[in-house]
Amino acid sequence: MRTYKYPNGRVYISETPEIKKKNNRYVSFGNRGTTFEEEINLSNEYYLNYGLAVIHKKPTPVQIVRVHYPKRSAAVIQEAYFRQASTTDYNGIYKGKYIDFEAKETRNKTLFPLQNIHLHQALHIKEILKHGGITFILIKFSTLNRIFFITGEVFITYWDRMQNNGKKSLSLEELVKDCYELKQTYNPHVNYLEIVDKHYF
Amino acid sequence: MRTYKYPNGRVYISETPEIKKKNNRYVSFGNRGTTFEEEINLSNEYYLNYGLAVIHKKPTPVQIVRVHYPKRSAAVIQEAYFRQASTTDYNGIYKGKYIDFEAKETRNKTLFPLQNIHLHQALHIKEILKHGGITFILIKFSTLNRIFFITGEVFITYWDRMQNNGKKSLSLEELVKDCYELKQTYNPHVNYLEIVDKHYF
Repeated sequence: MRTYKYPNGRVYISETPEIKKKNNRYVSFGNRGTTFEEEINLSNEYYLNYGLAVIHKKPTPVQIVRVHYPKRSAAVIQEAYFRQASTTDYNGIYKGKYIDFEAKETRNKTLFPLQNIHLHQALHIKEILKHGGITFILIKFSTLNRIFFITGEVFITYWDRMQNNGKKSLSLEELVKDCYELKQTYNPHVNYLEIVDKHYF
Repeated sequence: MRTYKYPNGRVYISETPEIKKKNNRYVSFGNRGTTFEEEINLSNEYYLNYGLAVIHKKPTPVQIVRVHYPKRSAAVIQEAYFRQASTTDYNGIYKGKYIDFEAKETRNKTLFPLQNIHLHQALHIKEILKHGGITFILIKFSTLNRIFFITGEVFITYWDRMQNNGKKSLSLEELVKDCYELKQTYNPHVNYLEIVDKHYF
């Protein structure tokens, strides 16, 4: 984690996405390789820097309960709770179009459990489709090092199947058959816009 | 603040935007009237419920440093800091187009200080304009109970004037001359899409 101090004494801390629970502390695990979230953030930075798209991750939703305001330094949040996201994590604009997606990583080698996507997120995806936006989910099988791009339309088919007492997961075979697999390149590493171009433009 | 408990003991707390510093605690001030943020959130809910648009406020960006994981109950964030937003607060989709805006409230009666919009946000607005998105700022003069809609294009003119050692604020006269004023209606209260229709469609 990088900490900066402003001349007025206010502390500024940049966001590090690679944090993990350890001894009840969030710690950075820089040398253990980058997370999927960080790979996507870097790809979004690449898109932004090259003027290709403006896509950002939304901050983690947190309910703040208690804040301490020390003299001459930054406000400290002393009690807060994680809230469930009501939308997908990423959105922005590409070629003038609204773009919206969720990214999930799994250690599973054979299937993707659909409950990884919350009800609110599935409803949000349906809303975006209704309004003509581009929406999809990126799924990374970290053990297999394979990334799939599932369009919102296809995802909703599987989601609705589950709602009608069908399968609660998406098998790797289904993903290979119905989705795009991302070629992983050097920079940007998670070049999902290549697939957006192919499918939507 | 509403607190819910899930069957698994996890606490769920819904977001209440009307929170304010008091005795180093964030407290709700429900009967002191609604804030501009809450008015906009309610208007966005109205748009969503009537299928007109999907526009959400992004969560407040927070840097989490320390989390406690008690047995059988929700994780408690015990140390965190506020971070500066790198984008505007609201975005989404309307009539298939990307829409993006910031909302600011001021008690000032004669002018809007431009430093209320951070550098990162101004740069973000420029990026959105470049990509053909709809972007604007809503400014509420709470003492006067007047709300102005300033398009991204006009805002950038004033912002660049400031960067070139010009005025650091936007006078009420300038707002009246160069911006739209919102008629405040009952529901939705902050009907900014009416002006989006007028200006962009």
